[in-house]
Amino acid sequence: MNIVTSIEKISQICSDWRSQGMTIGLVPTMGFLHRGHMSLAEAAVKDNDKVVMSIFVNPTQFGPNEDFSRYPRDMGADIKAAYKAGVDLVFCPTVEEMYPEGYQNYVEPGSLTTYLCGKSRPGHFRGVCTVVLKFFNIVTPDNAYFGQKDYQQFVVLKRMVKDFNLPVNMHCMPIIRESDHLALSSRNVYLTAEQRQAAPKLFAALSETRQMYADGEDNAAVLEQRIREIISGYPDARIDYIAIADKDTLEPLTNIKNGAVIALAVWFGNTRLIDNILL
Amino acid sequence: MNIVTSIEKISQICSDWRSQGMTIGLVPTMGFLHRGHMSLAEAAVKDNDKVVMSIFVNPTQFGPNEDFSRYPRDMGADIKAAYKAGVDLVFCPTVEEMYPEGYQNYVEPGSLTTYLCGKSRPGHFRGVCTVVLKFFNIVTPDNAYFGQKDYQQFVVLKRMVKDFNLPVNMHCMPIIRESDHLALSSRNVYLTAEQRQAAPKLFAALSETRQMYADGEDNAAVLEQRIREIISGYPDARIDYIAIADKDTLEPLTNIKNGAVIALAVWFGNTRLIDNILL
Repeated sequence: MNIVTSIEKISQICSDWRSQGMTIGLVPTMGFLHRGHMSLAEAAVKDNDKVVMSIFVNPTQFGPNEDFSRYPRDMGADIKAAYKAGVDLVFCPTVEEMYPEGYQNYVEPGSLTTYLCGKSRPGHFRGVCTVVLKFFNIVTPDNAYFGQKDYQQFVVLKRMVKDFNLPVNMHCMPIIRESDHLALSSRNVYLTAEQRQAAPKLFAALSETRQMYADGEDNAAVLEQRIREIISGYPDARIDYIAIADKDTLEPLTNIKNGAVIALAVWFGNTRLIDNILL
Repeated sequence: MNIVTSIEKISQICSDWRSQGMTIGLVPTMGFLHRGHMSLAEAAVKDNDKVVMSIFVNPTQFGPNEDFSRYPRDMGADIKAAYKAGVDLVFCPTVEEMYPEGYQNYVEPGSLTTYLCGKSRPGHFRGVCTVVLKFFNIVTPDNAYFGQKDYQQFVVLKRMVKDFNLPVNMHCMPIIRESDHLALSSRNVYLTAEQRQAAPKLFAALSETRQMYADGEDNAAVLEQRIREIISGYPDARIDYIAIADKDTLEPLTNIKNGAVIALAVWFGNTRLIDNILL
């Protein structure tokens, strides 16, 4: 497995692969890998001749008061995990390599970023889109793999790919969960023991609304209220948002007709967790 | 010569060329071709196996009070000229093909757009960068050709290419002029006979400052004042800006040490002309 920090070098390697007619899969990550990331890598290994995993904690997608500096990092463990998953190349550039002096171009995504996480994290998707566009141009992947846990991220990136005519197939992979159904996240390590015990209630609340919907309840306000009740039972939990929205446009729904995404973000102390289900 | 309006079709053609190992040159234009455009096409034909010329009056780079709707168009003549120049493919999409319903991603360029034309045309370079990024992704050119007349455009695009890690070589080709030294521009057709007679004074003013600089005058204010005097002699001319700036950063200079660009934009009635020289 190759470990590359230079854009020039990885571009050369990927260009060589391309000229040999090989397909390339890309798994963009911020490292501190868990089984969720691994499931993306495994899908990529299955679908492509060569697989690149990027490991880069991208400063431009963090707000000034967010957790960029304390975001968990463990490059040694990540490299072992990537190797074990069959990744061919780990790309782990420095911030200076990605954003050299004088850097000034960003992607300006649109209305899809005004909903859900975009509301409480202004500039977040601008940073996500910018770094992913750069990775796409550097790696020239045929396929790119993202987790459904960051559902809005996937929808926003897919729209960017369409709008900018990028020749990349976008794959949204299922959420991987702990045995108690907490969605895997690198940020779960921030949780105290008590918070960790309460956190599975997010998925419990989502599951209950899925059942209510299956039983005929299609009123979004009623479903949202039920989620709010369940989560409010935990004094340490503070709801950022609960959204019942169109799967493609992310616009809020009043009644669910043709499917929906139910997404939420909840603070446990200083830790913000997200989860979602598709109906 | 192929004439293509569909993104899907041109992507396929360019992808086929690539897989045969051919190099591709791109000449992005807004049509109403003149010898300036032709010089770009000729350079592209010389350097590349295949040459694509895009002809697209891009609405996103025009302000609400600018000349998008009346911008001169002549697709019949353009196609003849492209054919004569040896272009292999003319790409002339509709606005709907380039910006379909729900379109929402743009390039947000940076500080380079705060100077010169960027000051009086807010959003202009956002539109230019966006459409050129799209063309680059659709055509995947090795080389792209732009005219020095739009010098700031070239500097802004070159920075975008660098920042977004686009694998495209950027070529800035010399300004082509009429026999009286007026820089060729599709907008010259807007000029009245009197305006047309006065317009060559732009280059005359630039040339005089070049001579002053050669004779030892390196004070930007002095050079600018001389240009202002020459142009103010024409009552129908209204100066938008005169800038003496660093060639790379476009920051204004007070003294010229290591070269400069002297750029100007001047209104003749409702027609805004630009010109520049490099020292």
